[in-house]
Amino acid sequence: MDKLTNKAEEQLKVVSTATLTTQLFKRGLRNVFMQGVRRVSTNAPALVGPAYTLRNIPAREDLDHLGVFEGRSHPQRRAIEEVPPGHVLVMDCRGETSVASGGGILMLRAQVRGAAGVVSDGGLRDTPEIAQMNWPVYAAGPSAPTNLIKHSALDLNVPIGCGGVPVYPGDIIHGDAEGVVVIPQEIANEVAADAWEQERFERFVVREVKAGKSIFGTYPPDDDTRARYQEWLKEGEPA
Amino acid sequence: MDKLTNKAEEQLKVVSTATLTTQLFKRGLRNVFMQGVRRVSTNAPALVGPAYTLRNIPAREDLDHLGVFEGRSHPQRRAIEEVPPGHVLVMDCRGETSVASGGGILMLRAQVRGAAGVVSDGGLRDTPEIAQMNWPVYAAGPSAPTNLIKHSALDLNVPIGCGGVPVYPGDIIHGDAEGVVVIPQEIANEVAADAWEQERFERFVVREVKAGKSIFGTYPPDDDTRARYQEWLKEGEPA
Amino acid sequence: MDKLTNKAEEQLKVVSTATLTTQLFKRGLRNVFMQGVRRVSTNAPALVGPAYTLRNIPAREDLDHLGVFEGRSHPQRRAIEEVPPGHVLVMDCRGETSVASGGGILMLRAQVRGAAGVVSDGGLRDTPEIAQMNWPVYAAGPSAPTNLIKHSALDLNVPIGCGGVPVYPGDIIHGDAEGVVVIPQEIANEVAADAWEQERFERFVVREVKAGKSIFGTYPPDDDTRARYQEWLKEGEPA
Amino acid sequence: MDKLTNKAEEQLKVVSTATLTTQLFKRGLRNVFMQGVRRVSTNAPALVGPAYTLRNIPAREDLDHLGVFEGRSHPQRRAIEEVPPGHVLVMDCRGETSVASGGGILMLRAQVRGAAGVVSDGGLRDTPEIAQMNWPVYAAGPSAPTNLIKHSALDLNVPIGCGGVPVYPGDIIHGDAEGVVVIPQEIANEVAADAWEQERFERFVVREVKAGKSIFGTYPPDDDTRARYQEWLKEGEPA
Amino acid sequence: MDKLTNKAEEQLKVVSTATLTTQLFKRGLRNVFMQGVRRVSTNAPALVGPAYTLRNIPAREDLDHLGVFEGRSHPQRRAIEEVPPGHVLVMDCRGETSVASGGGILMLRAQVRGAAGVVSDGGLRDTPEIAQMNWPVYAAGPSAPTNLIKHSALDLNVPIGCGGVPVYPGDIIHGDAEGVVVIPQEIANEVAADAWEQERFERFVVREVKAGKSIFGTYPPDDDTRARYQEWLKEGEPA
Amino acid sequence: MDKLTNKAEEQLKVVSTATLTTQLFKRGLRNVFMQGVRRVSTNAPALVGPAYTLRNIPAREDLDHLGVFEGRSHPQRRAIEEVPPGHVLVMDCRGETSVASGGGILMLRAQVRGAAGVVSDGGLRDTPEIAQMNWPVYAAGPSAPTNLIKHSALDLNVPIGCGGVPVYPGDIIHGDAEGVVVIPQEIANEVAADAWEQERFERFVVREVKAGKSIFGTYPPDDDTRARYQEWLKEGEPA
Repeated sequence: MDKLTNKAEEQLKVVSTATLTTQLFKRGLRNVFMQGVRRVSTNAPALVGPAYTLRNIPAREDLDHLGVFEGRSHPQRRAIEEVPPGHVLVMDCRGETSVASGGGILMLRAQVRGAAGVVSDGGLRDTPEIAQMNWPVYAAGPSAPTNLIKHSALDLNVPIGCGGVPVYPGDIIHGDAEGVVVIPQEIANEVAADAWEQERFERFVVREVKAGKSIFGTYPPDDDTRARYQEWLKEGEPA
Repeated sequence: MDKLTNKAEEQLKVVSTATLTTQLFKRGLRNVFMQGVRRVSTNAPALVGPAYTLRNIPAREDLDHLGVFEGRSHPQRRAIEEVPPGHVLVMDCRGETSVASGGGILMLRAQVRGAAGVVSDGGLRDTPEIAQMNWPVYAAGPSAPTNLIKHSALDLNVPIGCGGVPVYPGDIIHGDAEGVVVIPQEIANEVAADAWEQERFERFVVREVKAGKSIFGTYPPDDDTRARYQEWLKEGEPA
Repeated sequence: MDKLTNKAEEQLKVVSTATLTTQLFKRGLRNVFMQGVRRVSTNAPALVGPAYTLRNIPAREDLDHLGVFEGRSHPQRRAIEEVPPGHVLVMDCRGETSVASGGGILMLRAQVRGAAGVVSDGGLRDTPEIAQMNWPVYAAGPSAPTNLIKHSALDLNVPIGCGGVPVYPGDIIHGDAEGVVVIPQEIANEVAADAWEQERFERFVVREVKAGKSIFGTYPPDDDTRARYQEWLKEGEPA
Repeated sequence: MDKLTNKAEEQLKVVSTATLTTQLFKRGLRNVFMQGVRRVSTNAPALVGPAYTLRNIPAREDLDHLGVFEGRSHPQRRAIEEVPPGHVLVMDCRGETSVASGGGILMLRAQVRGAAGVVSDGGLRDTPEIAQMNWPVYAAGPSAPTNLIKHSALDLNVPIGCGGVPVYPGDIIHGDAEGVVVIPQEIANEVAADAWEQERFERFVVREVKAGKSIFGTYPPDDDTRARYQEWLKEGEPA
Repeated sequence: MDKLTNKAEEQLKVVSTATLTTQLFKRGLRNVFMQGVRRVSTNAPALVGPAYTLRNIPAREDLDHLGVFEGRSHPQRRAIEEVPPGHVLVMDCRGETSVASGGGILMLRAQVRGAAGVVSDGGLRDTPEIAQMNWPVYAAGPSAPTNLIKHSALDLNVPIGCGGVPVYPGDIIHGDAEGVVVIPQEIANEVAADAWEQERFERFVVREVKAGKSIFGTYPPDDDTRARYQEWLKEGEPA
Repeated sequence: MDKLTNKAEEQLKVVSTATLTTQLFKRGLRNVFMQGVRRVSTNAPALVGPAYTLRNIPAREDLDHLGVFEGRSHPQRRAIEEVPPGHVLVMDCRGETSVASGGGILMLRAQVRGAAGVVSDGGLRDTPEIAQMNWPVYAAGPSAPTNLIKHSALDLNVPIGCGGVPVYPGDIIHGDAEGVVVIPQEIANEVAADAWEQERFERFVVREVKAGKSIFGTYPPDDDTRARYQEWLKEGEPA
């Protein structure tokens, strides 16, 4: 299993989820963008990091009461305390948005511990406060009620679904203001490189389009455009 | 953990899911009836047995191809070969009904092996054939496409959700023509007994209502009705 | 307010919901067919009668417990005891199908009391038994859990919505194997007459189409078809 | 563009939608089974034939009134009069099920004209009568209101979507009691042959499983099973 | 029935919906947070006040025309003119978001009359203007079309459902940037007090977590944390 | 077919979708506001222009691959290159929001070419960049994956549905911060004039309501209010 290189991490921090989904589509992967998951912390930087997962099943009234938070064994609380620094906690809530999957204090603790961010396909509470965090948190919407009402936290770091997408522990999670994409870890380095190159070309395309060029022949490029792009590359992209 | 007694099993075979949900509601459990799960094998007998579970997550094109069925390791196939006799295979498909979670040959093998039945909250293929089986199979609807298109079978006999209800391995699964209810195994014997008693009383109520009695005073009973019921019990219920 | 005449009632018993929705569309009413409401008692005769309504709101755990059925004041039970003979009990469940809005004993009591039938846009329990009743019961699907889990019965005989359609007390409810249509009582007699006439003409159209006639010129009719229809009427429709 | 051979047509008449979706999945096609479309005419034979399409857009009150059925130009009526014998009329209703896309008289006319059947992803009216036809009609559910309320019929025999699946004119439509699959016409003959062969093998598998064989090694087959299958083929399949 | 004290009102103005749902969960109430209802007036202060309700049913074309707004009897208009100062107008739109339940002029009039705010589970029109009001308005989304197209306003100040939650007249409605919670009036004073106390403790927890404390032992607190909290209380919370 | 006059265009640029839906409701048109379509470019000016349409059907894996963008024939790319200046490109995505219907480069090219704006009922990618454009773009939500995964672009400038509303080429599309309304071109000039007049009156109403007037007698106006309005008009509305 390949580790994400520093270079790939830097590249991923500047490319978009849109570009990454195209690179994954080229590799035959069509279902990589989480549906219905939005960024809560509006001004947070890009999210990049390997997935550390939490699995929930539906709650049962006799098992999921406030007492479960006593002690040190509740999987949701363990997830917050055990997600490794630099990793992204991804919570499988089966798309149930009528209750929260976490709140402000847990997000704060995960941030203090050095996690890269949190992603949930359930609701989230304390969203007015979390919206102000300068740290990436994604969820399917604001929802005040406690997770215990609908969710029973069960497993740590097993393969899950989130937003309809498979997430295996260690997969690279990437988020921007559009949403969250899951990159299988085996191909994350090459996807990062190709995405970075694709966006460099698209910066050239934007310049061309602003100058009045047609989409035809430019995007995708014909031979003439390809030649012009090579020249542009030689000139060096302005910072 | 209490084992289901023979008497409780016999009682469960004759009571309805409606009665069982009332008994579970009396014990504070509101979310016990699987939503959207219907009986496919129309003429099958009642379903009663402990849960043996299979967990699916969303499929990934590179991992979930027809080759996975080679060998002996695919969890869906293992589920069919390993579900213990008398147990119910319950499949967590996260409510995804656009593809199948199994088909006729797998159902047949499970039946031959002595499983009590199969329950899925996903689609099912070969439903025209399965409809003719004299053996209980429940699913969220007919759907021809192979499971690989949307489901990746992952875990055996872990707690799951099915039809929005938590299912722990060993929970007692009960199905009739109305649907499927999940009874926590710890209380299955007492729930069975109370349900059987509730239905005996309701047979008396039906006789009363057919004779023109009002719901008021009869259902629930007032002192007079309770006395008449005791008499009726002494006379012995006609077979 | 016009009372439904005996003749109109007889006419309504033989025409279809499809024909009635066309007659109501001609009068500017587009939203008259209940969405998602199906006949549970498969072999029941046509349903015709004025609406008597029950309104539910979402349940609250402290108010909606099994104790509410004691005494004679619970609106759901009162609805069953008070729906006038020949009337249709229509229950507004706000389309919530995850629990029942009634069950077999209540349906039996309403039948014994002479109600024309029951319609609900919620779930229904004991559907295997109700399916065998020779009496019209409609609901949005089988659902075992008791109504108390989601519904709080509140008002009798107020205007409601059911299956997305407005229902005013006294409106004429009509059901066949396709579903349920609501006819404003002020126009029920004329709608019945026009629907009966429309179906007589359509019986003629079926004969024509079976004989090879094109839809064009036949349905709707041109002058030639109209003349042939008049002849057919003179000959007298075969019984 | 290949024409469907007589042999392929015969093969398609006996294979199931489940088998066909597997064959199409092997060819990289995952979205071929119409979602939410069910057979209305319960006892009809298998549906096989090339698609002839009708496209609807949402209705507009001033354009879509009962007067549009006068004359010979309304696309819905033209579809019924123009679908070639042996073809399947497939109606794109954008999944809108709250109104009908057709009714009993139109279905009768299409049958008389020799169409192979009708498929719609909208509602259908007169379903109690259509249910009795010995001719394949599929729709997304019973719905009495006239199509004019929501649908404006627009185009004949253009590519459409139906039940979420792309349908190009001439694609082979196949339906059984499970639902409807769309086979691109270019590959219909080979898909038919491979599906027929797959089902012959599965009949052997069913015999093996009934005799107690494990799924492992049988389905898919290992070398031993393959050899046994070849022997079984030589013996000749019993009729 | 207890009146909301001034102290409780002040406490409710500073606590969050998240905290209140936890307090209500402790009292057995799980369904108190309106689903799908969002604040339209982005910069409005917290919403606190007793509920005054309006009930809608689906519209009927002949009854719900622009003429109904003439005179002084239309319930929607009466609701705006009759909601008592300090009260919250809560509108039951059965979750129908395709049309508005009110617009800018009605909101302005309610504000001028001294209402505490407006909550609807339907759409709202003129949302660009309402977004600028410094007064709390909540709805299920922007929707320009007039309410008459789908809603018939019917009753004032009866129990209703809104956002899936039961609302009894006089219940205390509380809204923040996360959404809206309904507090039964009988327990509003004690819930306010306990919520305020819970948030005071959580401010201490935030300080602890920022200082590097684990969730375990802190939230919920162990004996050590409880002692430290008591000390912190003695020191007096900094303003 | 009437052309939109300059005066009508100016009037449409200042009136709201809410006002326009009321004017269309007065003319019997109830379904004119696109459901689920929101403005992506938050600070863009009002959108006004005739519709130029693109129709999509569901994608097929073998037909809809990245190679289709080569050459000059792909309908999505042609739509961008052919939408006439001043026109609005309206894309029918059948409400499929799980993938994009376009992205930043295409939007930029359409803007450079002088299109009035773009409207889609599908997803949109590159929404963080598009949000910054000072040019009106509407879609059903952010969604990174390429359109090819779900959409096959097919037809240019045919009647379509978008957001559940019929759109005929040349219909006037109007968008503000609330959403998008479709005005049949035949009545666009008169609707513009009446909407402008309605809003002038409503500015008077706002002044009255701010001054303490009741809704009753003011909105709609009684004779007294009508007289006051005439006076206000004479005085001349302050700029």
